[in-house]
Amino acid sequence: MLILLRPDVTAPQQAAIEALVKSHGLVPHVIPGAARTAIGITGNRGALEPGRYQSLPGVADVIAVSQPYKLVSREWKPDDTVVTVRGVPIGGQRITVMAGPCSVESTEQIHEAGRGVLRAGAHMLRGGAFKPRTSPYEFQGLKEEGLRLLAEVRAETGLPIVTEVKDTETLALVAEYADLLQIGARNMQNFSLLEAVGDLRTPVLLKRGMSATLKELLMAAEYIVSRGNPNVILCERGIRTFETMTRNTFDINAIPMLKERSHLPVIADPSHGVGVRSAVGPVALAAIAAGADGVIIEVHPRPSEALSDGQQSLDVAQFGLVMGRLARVAEAVGRSV
Amino acid sequence: MLILLRPDVTAPQQAAIEALVKSHGLVPHVIPGAARTAIGITGNRGALEPGRYQSLPGVADVIAVSQPYKLVSREWKPDDTVVTVRGVPIGGQRITVMAGPCSVESTEQIHEAGRGVLRAGAHMLRGGAFKPRTSPYEFQGLKEEGLRLLAEVRAETGLPIVTEVKDTETLALVAEYADLLQIGARNMQNFSLLEAVGDLRTPVLLKRGMSATLKELLMAAEYIVSRGNPNVILCERGIRTFETMTRNTFDINAIPMLKERSHLPVIADPSHGVGVRSAVGPVALAAIAAGADGVIIEVHPRPSEALSDGQQSLDVAQFGLVMGRLARVAEAVGRSV
Amino acid sequence: MLILLRPDVTAPQQAAIEALVKSHGLVPHVIPGAARTAIGITGNRGALEPGRYQSLPGVADVIAVSQPYKLVSREWKPDDTVVTVRGVPIGGQRITVMAGPCSVESTEQIHEAGRGVLRAGAHMLRGGAFKPRTSPYEFQGLKEEGLRLLAEVRAETGLPIVTEVKDTETLALVAEYADLLQIGARNMQNFSLLEAVGDLRTPVLLKRGMSATLKELLMAAEYIVSRGNPNVILCERGIRTFETMTRNTFDINAIPMLKERSHLPVIADPSHGVGVRSAVGPVALAAIAAGADGVIIEVHPRPSEALSDGQQSLDVAQFGLVMGRLARVAEAVGRSV
Amino acid sequence: MLILLRPDVTAPQQAAIEALVKSHGLVPHVIPGAARTAIGITGNRGALEPGRYQSLPGVADVIAVSQPYKLVSREWKPDDTVVTVRGVPIGGQRITVMAGPCSVESTEQIHEAGRGVLRAGAHMLRGGAFKPRTSPYEFQGLKEEGLRLLAEVRAETGLPIVTEVKDTETLALVAEYADLLQIGARNMQNFSLLEAVGDLRTPVLLKRGMSATLKELLMAAEYIVSRGNPNVILCERGIRTFETMTRNTFDINAIPMLKERSHLPVIADPSHGVGVRSAVGPVALAAIAAGADGVIIEVHPRPSEALSDGQQSLDVAQFGLVMGRLARVAEAVGRSV
Repeated sequence: MLILLRPDVTAPQQAAIEALVKSHGLVPHVIPGAARTAIGITGNRGALEPGRYQSLPGVADVIAVSQPYKLVSREWKPDDTVVTVRGVPIGGQRITVMAGPCSVESTEQIHEAGRGVLRAGAHMLRGGAFKPRTSPYEFQGLKEEGLRLLAEVRAETGLPIVTEVKDTETLALVAEYADLLQIGARNMQNFSLLEAVGDLRTPVLLKRGMSATLKELLMAAEYIVSRGNPNVILCERGIRTFETMTRNTFDINAIPMLKERSHLPVIADPSHGVGVRSAVGPVALAAIAAGADGVIIEVHPRPSEALSDGQQSLDVAQFGLVMGRLARVAEAVGRSV
Repeated sequence: MLILLRPDVTAPQQAAIEALVKSHGLVPHVIPGAARTAIGITGNRGALEPGRYQSLPGVADVIAVSQPYKLVSREWKPDDTVVTVRGVPIGGQRITVMAGPCSVESTEQIHEAGRGVLRAGAHMLRGGAFKPRTSPYEFQGLKEEGLRLLAEVRAETGLPIVTEVKDTETLALVAEYADLLQIGARNMQNFSLLEAVGDLRTPVLLKRGMSATLKELLMAAEYIVSRGNPNVILCERGIRTFETMTRNTFDINAIPMLKERSHLPVIADPSHGVGVRSAVGPVALAAIAAGADGVIIEVHPRPSEALSDGQQSLDVAQFGLVMGRLARVAEAVGRSV
Repeated sequence: MLILLRPDVTAPQQAAIEALVKSHGLVPHVIPGAARTAIGITGNRGALEPGRYQSLPGVADVIAVSQPYKLVSREWKPDDTVVTVRGVPIGGQRITVMAGPCSVESTEQIHEAGRGVLRAGAHMLRGGAFKPRTSPYEFQGLKEEGLRLLAEVRAETGLPIVTEVKDTETLALVAEYADLLQIGARNMQNFSLLEAVGDLRTPVLLKRGMSATLKELLMAAEYIVSRGNPNVILCERGIRTFETMTRNTFDINAIPMLKERSHLPVIADPSHGVGVRSAVGPVALAAIAAGADGVIIEVHPRPSEALSDGQQSLDVAQFGLVMGRLARVAEAVGRSV
Repeated sequence: MLILLRPDVTAPQQAAIEALVKSHGLVPHVIPGAARTAIGITGNRGALEPGRYQSLPGVADVIAVSQPYKLVSREWKPDDTVVTVRGVPIGGQRITVMAGPCSVESTEQIHEAGRGVLRAGAHMLRGGAFKPRTSPYEFQGLKEEGLRLLAEVRAETGLPIVTEVKDTETLALVAEYADLLQIGARNMQNFSLLEAVGDLRTPVLLKRGMSATLKELLMAAEYIVSRGNPNVILCERGIRTFETMTRNTFDINAIPMLKERSHLPVIADPSHGVGVRSAVGPVALAAIAAGADGVIIEVHPRPSEALSDGQQSLDVAQFGLVMGRLARVAEAVGRSV
């Protein structure tokens, strides 16, 4: 439930409202907004009686929040959330571009990638150090060595780092290096990991599970936010369907639907979303046209030598071309890169 | 199989090649191109022996066409096909916008819709007269009366008409009125209907079945083209997935994949693709950004009174806003509306 | 809406009720049942007012039918429907087994198949004469010649014939030969074809579309029954999912769900449902255990030479083994083969 | 790669073969079989050269294992694996039935459930203590208290316990109580958890992810087995599709496909597979008819009061009826309960 306060509410009125909520065994969350302040209520197991709060001094309105998610909803917080990652704002007027290889593979590879994507105009560097792989016999990443290499490139280029955390055991280590913690698709409903990153304040890039509904994605974000970490960025990365010509089916509908239902920033991952190099650029443009707040793109200095995801990685020159087109489409929808 | 001719091939050389193909019981199709002429071969049940033709005078190369579709493939015809519908070219530099109500419901409704979409800048009028409906108890369309009303609005506005043909029985009637015959998603593999429209020369808008793979869509187009009607336009309209927040999942990946694999024009139907009014505009922009040659959008003078698909129909003012944004995105990708 | 009559209703009372329904512009359908008679009402576009009929003499109860399908629902007709196909009852205590090749290919092949499946205990012969194929370049069936061959084998073996009708153009021809008309998965929502078979009284085997919901399957059956043909048999044949190890995903849940919601017989097609020869038998047994009224199985004298579906066809000996197991599982669930 | 030894191989010959494998930097796994012994080789990143081992004394044959999974494949180990859980063999001639509530809710509830399922003939007791829930606001289980209650009921009834472990943090605790550790669908690709249970020897019930392919399920099992824990039981529990009348689509095809490809036991979860109480029994029977080695069924003393999954739970009397039918179907396929 959400209590909307009047613009002229006084501090004592607001304090009294919060106290009443607590006296009912519930938790009040103050949500300041541009135009008005609201108080969200959590902790109830069923529906609440709005009449309890409707007529209190300072209350403009009380609205039920019908969705099973609350803190991440637009009803709860009408204004867009902007998450700042080491100085880079995500979710505002400007489109954010994250780029880099699927996996950190070597000193040379990641430095080359970092310099390349910086030169092409990227705002952040991506790269996996701990890789969840379908087979136990595949390359599992350089682990801590990979994180150190990412930090080296950050020191050189100034690009903030986004990298995946795959379990709670390595979370503390990854969080030492990462500016933005990526939760992968397979972990979207790893609730223990969601709670653990919810206890931090490091921003989180939460990827949609490969067969998760949008409602489930929002619920997963709710796990993180309800633990106290408001810095969540949603990521559409394609869902699993019957189509086999592409690796996944990028759900373009998810972009406007998530933006409408939630105040959180939404990023698109066209690389996994289509999984075919020649189509990555077009899908990236589509996501921006549909209202995404940014893209995350796999770029490798030499895709044909990549240890993972080579078939969907752009080389630096191809990425540069996509950047140019992204800038034009961003401008067409009133934004910039 | 495809025989690529040399730029300097002579007419007698080409005639000799065609004669040899026929002598093998096969059918040669001459495909003129901007840079070179090719001869496609059909009629074979298995693989052909390229050696038969490789060394003939005038032959540059012989290439196997590995996909199960041939005539609709890029290998077969590298240049984009432009289908002209009553003077409106589809598949060229300019984006085509088709708009109008799901169903023709009354004289007033369709005239109002036609004037509205013309004023907003649409190039064609859509409207269903024969409606395939999931339930036998739902509104099935005005039938011939609906076709007559569409023709009236065409006479008034000059807008060519696209309308659905749902069976072979009514094909002759619908073809009398329609400038572009729409084959609906449920009929994408109604092979008898595909063959029947293949025997005409009226352009065909072929919608992807709700669980059809892209390969199956191309095979369905091949049915039409192989009967002699080259005027086929492919239409992505969303596929069926587990997601329930939207009516379908618009497969944005389909746009670049179809453009890469086929020379046929590709149109997007964001109205059915997402099925939620507020998201129709964003998905339309996305499709153009990804390379679609046009969009088909449901517009109703008063969506709340629509007999079908009201929840996904724009009103004329909303459509006007989308048109403005479409023009900007089209320009960003080097095209115009 | 459904009017349940009292056990002691008199003929004049019933006639008066029917007359009143008609006077409201609606259509009454008398549905005799083992325990009670009911009158179903169709022809209404929206909800009906039960109060109109509730207090009439002879009326026990009036119930709204909430689903979008009516005539095929259990609420409408609580007792199982038994459809009789040339003397073979389908939907009763006994399990029905239909078997034979995907396509009729030659005199020898279909005679051999017919004799083989008869010897193994099948009750009906299946075989396609008009084949809908994904590619225009594939074998499309022997057409009328195939029907004639099926009739020959019926004359020899006494087995009734089930064969597919793929369009309205060939319906009259196919109906001359077929004892049970099969509507294929791709035609489940070919409403013109549904209406055309609804105008006959020949029994119809209606296959579920490859991405049709169970509700849509029931609505498709409603199309046929509402035109006057009550002899509809539902067929689960697998749906399209992301799984690629099997051709389709046989939806075993469909068996109990359809039996619960509808009074129509339900047949399983394990051959298309799994598409892998070694798994056809296990899936057939599963369907019977779950409550199916029968199975339709592809059997070919020499599967490796089949022109279509060889990979999922059993040979006669394999089919004989499956028949033995089917008999044991049928008995375990209180039925017989 | 797999080295098949001759029946008359001597111990020194076998030792020499193993030593050679190790000298190549690879790991030999001795797999004793009823008829012959085999040595599996892992540790290679690419294909191996069979010629290296083909002609050694004692070697009958060397076969490449083409699938990406090895240790769990039938090629690797042709004989069925029987996993013994506190004296209950799973995967042999006898069908295993696990039953109990979704969640342990109270002392009374779990004792009542335990006594009820024992009386009805179940072999194991299921019950969740740590519950992964889609929403952070839903009941998350009684945690350690729930485990203690399960142990109490085990002490009273003698039924071994199967309960879910949801993360590595609580694994040691759960493993103290559980006889069979359940990995839930959402954790099927939680590779850190898979590795952690792979380091134990406690048997593991590995549930298929809701959109995992069968190949991915086998790869997940490979993670566990390759760490040294051979006691893995696969569990089909339904996949996510477009169908909404049921909670999931139980993939009956998975039963014969998994049994064919793998030597591991396969258990069916009809409760989650269909999610509708009235259909749980029919789907359970179907799974046994298709070759499953057992079923796991949700049973609650009073389903209408259940804190989770009430709509798909049987009460004790309903479960008793299903047990009777299961016994008859098991017998029909040559097994017993």
